[in-house]
Amino acid sequence: MADLGFARVDLDREARTGDPEVVYGAGKTPEQVAAILTALHAKHPERAVLATRLSPEAMAAARAVGAEVHEVARAATLGPTPEHHGRVGIISAGTSDAPVAAEAALTVATHGAAPVEIRDVGVAGLHRLLAVRDELATLDCVIVVAGMEGALPSVVGGLIGVPLIAVPTSVGYGASFGGLAALLGMLNSCAPGITVVNIDNGYGAGVAAARIVRVSQRVSERLSERDATGR
Amino acid sequence: MADLGFARVDLDREARTGDPEVVYGAGKTPEQVAAILTALHAKHPERAVLATRLSPEAMAAARAVGAEVHEVARAATLGPTPEHHGRVGIISAGTSDAPVAAEAALTVATHGAAPVEIRDVGVAGLHRLLAVRDELATLDCVIVVAGMEGALPSVVGGLIGVPLIAVPTSVGYGASFGGLAALLGMLNSCAPGITVVNIDNGYGAGVAAARIVRVSQRVSERLSERDATGR
Amino acid sequence: MADLGFARVDLDREARTGDPEVVYGAGKTPEQVAAILTALHAKHPERAVLATRLSPEAMAAARAVGAEVHEVARAATLGPTPEHHGRVGIISAGTSDAPVAAEAALTVATHGAAPVEIRDVGVAGLHRLLAVRDELATLDCVIVVAGMEGALPSVVGGLIGVPLIAVPTSVGYGASFGGLAALLGMLNSCAPGITVVNIDNGYGAGVAAARIVRVSQRVSERLSERDATGR
Amino acid sequence: MADLGFARVDLDREARTGDPEVVYGAGKTPEQVAAILTALHAKHPERAVLATRLSPEAMAAARAVGAEVHEVARAATLGPTPEHHGRVGIISAGTSDAPVAAEAALTVATHGAAPVEIRDVGVAGLHRLLAVRDELATLDCVIVVAGMEGALPSVVGGLIGVPLIAVPTSVGYGASFGGLAALLGMLNSCAPGITVVNIDNGYGAGVAAARIVRVSQRVSERLSERDATGR
Amino acid sequence: MADLGFARVDLDREARTGDPEVVYGAGKTPEQVAAILTALHAKHPERAVLATRLSPEAMAAARAVGAEVHEVARAATLGPTPEHHGRVGIISAGTSDAPVAAEAALTVATHGAAPVEIRDVGVAGLHRLLAVRDELATLDCVIVVAGMEGALPSVVGGLIGVPLIAVPTSVGYGASFGGLAALLGMLNSCAPGITVVNIDNGYGAGVAAARIVRVSQRVSERLSERDATGR
Amino acid sequence: MADLGFARVDLDREARTGDPEVVYGAGKTPEQVAAILTALHAKHPERAVLATRLSPEAMAAARAVGAEVHEVARAATLGPTPEHHGRVGIISAGTSDAPVAAEAALTVATHGAAPVEIRDVGVAGLHRLLAVRDELATLDCVIVVAGMEGALPSVVGGLIGVPLIAVPTSVGYGASFGGLAALLGMLNSCAPGITVVNIDNGYGAGVAAARIVRVSQRVSERLSERDATGR
Amino acid sequence: MADLGFARVDLDREARTGDPEVVYGAGKTPEQVAAILTALHAKHPERAVLATRLSPEAMAAARAVGAEVHEVARAATLGPTPEHHGRVGIISAGTSDAPVAAEAALTVATHGAAPVEIRDVGVAGLHRLLAVRDELATLDCVIVVAGMEGALPSVVGGLIGVPLIAVPTSVGYGASFGGLAALLGMLNSCAPGITVVNIDNGYGAGVAAARIVRVSQRVSERLSERDATGR
Amino acid sequence: MADLGFARVDLDREARTGDPEVVYGAGKTPEQVAAILTALHAKHPERAVLATRLSPEAMAAARAVGAEVHEVARAATLGPTPEHHGRVGIISAGTSDAPVAAEAALTVATHGAAPVEIRDVGVAGLHRLLAVRDELATLDCVIVVAGMEGALPSVVGGLIGVPLIAVPTSVGYGASFGGLAALLGMLNSCAPGITVVNIDNGYGAGVAAARIVRVSQRVSERLSERDATGR
Repeated sequence: MADLGFARVDLDREARTGDPEVVYGAGKTPEQVAAILTALHAKHPERAVLATRLSPEAMAAARAVGAEVHEVARAATLGPTPEHHGRVGIISAGTSDAPVAAEAALTVATHGAAPVEIRDVGVAGLHRLLAVRDELATLDCVIVVAGMEGALPSVVGGLIGVPLIAVPTSVGYGASFGGLAALLGMLNSCAPGITVVNIDNGYGAGVAAARIVRVSQRVSERLSERDATGR
Repeated sequence: MADLGFARVDLDREARTGDPEVVYGAGKTPEQVAAILTALHAKHPERAVLATRLSPEAMAAARAVGAEVHEVARAATLGPTPEHHGRVGIISAGTSDAPVAAEAALTVATHGAAPVEIRDVGVAGLHRLLAVRDELATLDCVIVVAGMEGALPSVVGGLIGVPLIAVPTSVGYGASFGGLAALLGMLNSCAPGITVVNIDNGYGAGVAAARIVRVSQRVSERLSERDATGR
Repeated sequence: MADLGFARVDLDREARTGDPEVVYGAGKTPEQVAAILTALHAKHPERAVLATRLSPEAMAAARAVGAEVHEVARAATLGPTPEHHGRVGIISAGTSDAPVAAEAALTVATHGAAPVEIRDVGVAGLHRLLAVRDELATLDCVIVVAGMEGALPSVVGGLIGVPLIAVPTSVGYGASFGGLAALLGMLNSCAPGITVVNIDNGYGAGVAAARIVRVSQRVSERLSERDATGR
Repeated sequence: MADLGFARVDLDREARTGDPEVVYGAGKTPEQVAAILTALHAKHPERAVLATRLSPEAMAAARAVGAEVHEVARAATLGPTPEHHGRVGIISAGTSDAPVAAEAALTVATHGAAPVEIRDVGVAGLHRLLAVRDELATLDCVIVVAGMEGALPSVVGGLIGVPLIAVPTSVGYGASFGGLAALLGMLNSCAPGITVVNIDNGYGAGVAAARIVRVSQRVSERLSERDATGR
Repeated sequence: MADLGFARVDLDREARTGDPEVVYGAGKTPEQVAAILTALHAKHPERAVLATRLSPEAMAAARAVGAEVHEVARAATLGPTPEHHGRVGIISAGTSDAPVAAEAALTVATHGAAPVEIRDVGVAGLHRLLAVRDELATLDCVIVVAGMEGALPSVVGGLIGVPLIAVPTSVGYGASFGGLAALLGMLNSCAPGITVVNIDNGYGAGVAAARIVRVSQRVSERLSERDATGR
Repeated sequence: MADLGFARVDLDREARTGDPEVVYGAGKTPEQVAAILTALHAKHPERAVLATRLSPEAMAAARAVGAEVHEVARAATLGPTPEHHGRVGIISAGTSDAPVAAEAALTVATHGAAPVEIRDVGVAGLHRLLAVRDELATLDCVIVVAGMEGALPSVVGGLIGVPLIAVPTSVGYGASFGGLAALLGMLNSCAPGITVVNIDNGYGAGVAAARIVRVSQRVSERLSERDATGR
Repeated sequence: MADLGFARVDLDREARTGDPEVVYGAGKTPEQVAAILTALHAKHPERAVLATRLSPEAMAAARAVGAEVHEVARAATLGPTPEHHGRVGIISAGTSDAPVAAEAALTVATHGAAPVEIRDVGVAGLHRLLAVRDELATLDCVIVVAGMEGALPSVVGGLIGVPLIAVPTSVGYGASFGGLAALLGMLNSCAPGITVVNIDNGYGAGVAAARIVRVSQRVSERLSERDATGR
Repeated sequence: MADLGFARVDLDREARTGDPEVVYGAGKTPEQVAAILTALHAKHPERAVLATRLSPEAMAAARAVGAEVHEVARAATLGPTPEHHGRVGIISAGTSDAPVAAEAALTVATHGAAPVEIRDVGVAGLHRLLAVRDELATLDCVIVVAGMEGALPSVVGGLIGVPLIAVPTSVGYGASFGGLAALLGMLNSCAPGITVVNIDNGYGAGVAAARIVRVSQRVSERLSERDATGR
């Protein structure tokens, strides 16, 4: 653990959980974000460090220390993206959901899986969703991002058999109550096998999806060993 | 207005609003339900009187005074069903939603429109819904009944251009909070032109749908008059 | 579908649902609003395109590309208003509800029906409402806009027999909880046949009302055909 | 204060506040209700003691010790009703609200004012309310009891200038959330001068109304003294 | 009714309800506030018109047209204060509640009763409240203003027998949820005879209190007539 | 840890935390309650084991294995009560709060402190509370139990300087929402130094109070050691 | 699809999603449960059909048609359990959570993965959880079941790197609000990669976990193919 | 009591409760904060006066009158810190919780106990918490500060036997609902003996902890007296 004065930084997260280091930018100054990014990168130069929920000022500070900035995702990465195993779909309906979907996609990419973004497939226009059914069939895991009534996971969930992580967003007004309507809708989905994360938590969905793909590789390796040992 | 001792019964509702008389059975004794049904029927023998939210005992009492009992809808009617104008679809997903859908259908029928019930078309099995698209195109108005996440109106709403009335039901558990999840989902639907009634209010949806069809006839008659008068 | 870079624009909505194209301005830059308006108008020059929830800057940008701006409704239209069939009343109580009522009226007008605005008829001054009873009788559909306790739809609903769409507004303070009190009041109305849309959703109410009038014409045409064919 | 073993009974309430003694029956056994009624009556034989929220068994026990039982109000009184000063209207809409209205009326009567019950005047049938306007003008204070959307106080409040106490009831279903919708509606009423009590609290409304009439007498006596003393 | 272009102003409120004219300033421009104040004053020069919820700019505009500005109450009056009958206590705990208490006191004064302000008597310092018990005994009606847990009305309610109107305020943080905690506390008060208004609604409490005093006078006059006529 | 088949019982709790063993009876069969009580008592015969939230059947089963049953507290103890150090007041208002107060008092007693129960001191009758001020001054810690508006802790908190633990109860109706009103009231108390436990959690309050007294002894012993060692 | 009169049964679910057939028993009669189980088993004799949320009567009816009944899980299976691939941990804290944990474990088993149940590892006794750390390291996916404050997933989530599905239960009282506290706690977990299902939804968690293991196999097969083809 | 014009200042709080004077800075101008600090300090020069919830401007004003400013705690003290008895741990998880933890620590210090701050010990990294177990064993009382899911008190509560005060913070987003999730989590903790204060109320927790330590001294003195007197 490294002490930067304003924060003790956990430098061994990957060893414990397999996930790379991440800086949660909300409530941190641009200087703090840049300092933590630099410290983590120095410790783990071989793999990208991710910083999320960045203000425009924090994005500028991250860029100044050499990080790549991802505007739509309001995030930055410092260091090389890891090799990708498995394909994770990030499906979203409206353009307002784009920041959350982009955060999820970037998290997937920095955690070792290939993000496949599919946009503009709201439930009120089924033809768009049905048009991508073949693409859906190639995915190992799906993240569905939706605000307002949050119905998209139920519809997608009926079309696929792979794990589906639903992300409610705070997009909406009035009786959406800051994303509560979408959250409740997703928790009550009639399609089985759907799991849900917090409102606007694209990062959390990305980590979960990447872990799903990662465990696949682990199982795969175990099966290979069995084959090799003749068990 | 007739005074039955325990209630003053409004006998002139149809004249004021065009809707037939209705007995709301919740909280009334079987004897009260039977007495009010009989009084209303005596005043309006030419058109069916409707009684809703009946207990098994109230259904028996209604049957005893000559009413037709509708078990699934938990309702009874006394008097001849009116002639039907226009077709109102009542679309529902799960079997648990059947009582609310049946109440809506019966209300539509007693208020002068033809109910067309379409069942088992949940959003998690789109193929069922897509299979009835041609039938949807023949309807003048649609009532969509759904519990849990309440996503069905959004999906149906994207397929049609006629008025759509959404009825959330209390079917669900946990974070459905007695139908709140479905209600919020429907109010936040991304499909335009959807309107919503109270949780489990099949009767209210039926009245609204019948009024929509009735106003159609009024417009039609007005247009006919114009034609006749050469305007 | 046209790809503007930042959005894929649905150009065929009218063919699918009968509704004209609409730009939901919330969360879009003035430039985006202007670009989408222009693209949709180029595709459908014969009928007004509507843009709602515009900031003052977006209104200016809309005006700059030739759109007519509707200040109170915070909206703009580009292209000729369609011919009007049927009369839709938009009834509101307080001056604070004016923007929502104006959005509903403009939506009705761009969707093909004639809006009839009736203002300042709050429930605490029944004499005002009773003074317009004759006008109410001429309407084919009614939209009632109210904040605070949201009681106006119940009172109007007892006076008419045509479809009534209630719009709760976020006008109020304290225990109005951003329009929740009005929303719950309308959902629990004791007047039958009332349906409800999301808080402040004047647009949604306008679409629903226009669809009700449109289906009337459809029924009317069907009846005329029957007459012509002697059925 | 008298100690009955299971309760220490306050025997001096009237001296402190002017209100008579009351037994809140919820959660008490029939024997306890009867014993407290008897003890309070022995102390104050000149004025009726009131017991509210009684189960059928508690009503029987009260009757057995000589109390008068009021079935609809689920209450009992023991001792002579006091002389009545001032007239308090108790206005209610539906028959389901009858127990709360009856509790309010009985409380008014035992606290020294004359209750005037006006029933079946729901907002969805304004003609009924307008038919009693002359009677409203004779009242010194009004209690309005309503469930569902709770709109009645707003309408009555616009017609009168005397104090109005609104009582929301738990009558309703779905999004009434046990009376919450009516409570919020009344708290947000656009008619000025309305005050509200807890859901189903007919007793509290009755006490408040009786105090209003009582303070009138006090003021009156003060004015009389001035006249007599020439001040 | 006068039409000012942006509003139709009700000029006959006093005739209908006995209350003077009031301008609710929230959401109105300074110019609108000034114009309505002037129009109402021209119609009723003999009695003060009240404007509430004024911004600093609106207060300046009111002052410019001759109104007296009440800074703490965020209000203004134009015209002479009426003669006062009866004494209404306005009891508050913390200094943060001062604006709501001042609005209530000013409303009482403009509606014809004498406000008696008693401050800094929170429940956590009972000695302060007990020190004013003699003053409490002289009041005809009491308004209690409190935020946070809203316990003050219960304590005051146990000490007096006159009507008590409780006003919850939005003062607090965290689990006060914008005044909800105080509102619920007051609605559930164990002291009988307490009625409640909306959060921060000092105006509503003042109107209700003034009506209580006004009805006292009416009763008093009625009693005098009886004396005079020998009934 | 002992495995009883249906439960693994923690036998070493006291060593870890200083608290005795407890059986939470809700959801357990009478046989399970009796078996766990017996097993824990066999392990710790020197100190009473406590069982809470018992049904009448579970109380009977506990009595059958030699436990002492505490009816009002719905609890049982098996084994000798420990020596008491320090005095903990348990102050409650209404008789309906008695079970929660009794559970708190019994928990205090089995955890090593002397409970002092003070009843019937509601905020609406301050004279009762003021009458026990001298007794309050002798207490080392206070538990205040209250339902409805939950105002009692604020009033008591202003009179004392020792730790105060507030217990909201589910006593109430309507807008008490199962104890939520009392809970929010206590969390927002304007009296400093008040802490709160879950609704109806007399047990938790008792444990916390006993720990406060226990830490006092620890501090005392530490001070004694200092004295003995001359530090 | 087979029509049983009371329900149209989906017989092709596995083909579409890979999941076996399931009967949701809530709201179905024992006869209906038995009939659907039999019909589904006849169609898919090679793989167990699962019925959940069974009443004791429905369990008896299921047993009568040859199904194996799982008492704690309130469920039944008819047909042979499939071969298991991968290990899914089901970790729970209290004995009250046992039914939900058992439903999750049985669902995992019928969906093709090996359930590993780990019980009695609540957060308030960390030593128990730390004692099973080695076992945790062998799991491919973890389901964590907890009521009350729902903290267990956060603690487990910090110890592992595989996917974690959190199931809040309705175990608790007072401010648990039927599982809401646990649900919110899990959604807000500070441990990354946690996803959540509805309150008490052990079935949904089991399906999601089994899908995660299943996708692992798919990835594994894909990798094997690559090896075989030399890609 | 001193009257500063804008506030009557309580100068005798310590005599009544043993707590020093405190200025709650929210809603007060910098000048008011400085004036009250000065007045209280003049009255009690021997002991530090505390001012909390200060804006940067108020901190500057406090510094100008000689107060020591505590930036992180957003607070100021004027006068000498009292001698410290007992050790109170303030345990927090994230850096965002620092202001609330600092306010609690400063309050403890000004109320007479020694604060021991332990940071960065979140539940998702148990190793950090386990590393400070020996330090935990030396504390007389523990304050645990946590946002998001609020699980830390449950974990700490299982490790210690001294009183634990939990402080939920508003740190979080989405379904944290401003700290509600953490608050509910703490109230439902499965670890016994935990008590809770309002969201972000570090001050209240500090007062409660200091009172716990103070009562310890009182008990200690009493025991000493007994020893001295031979009782």
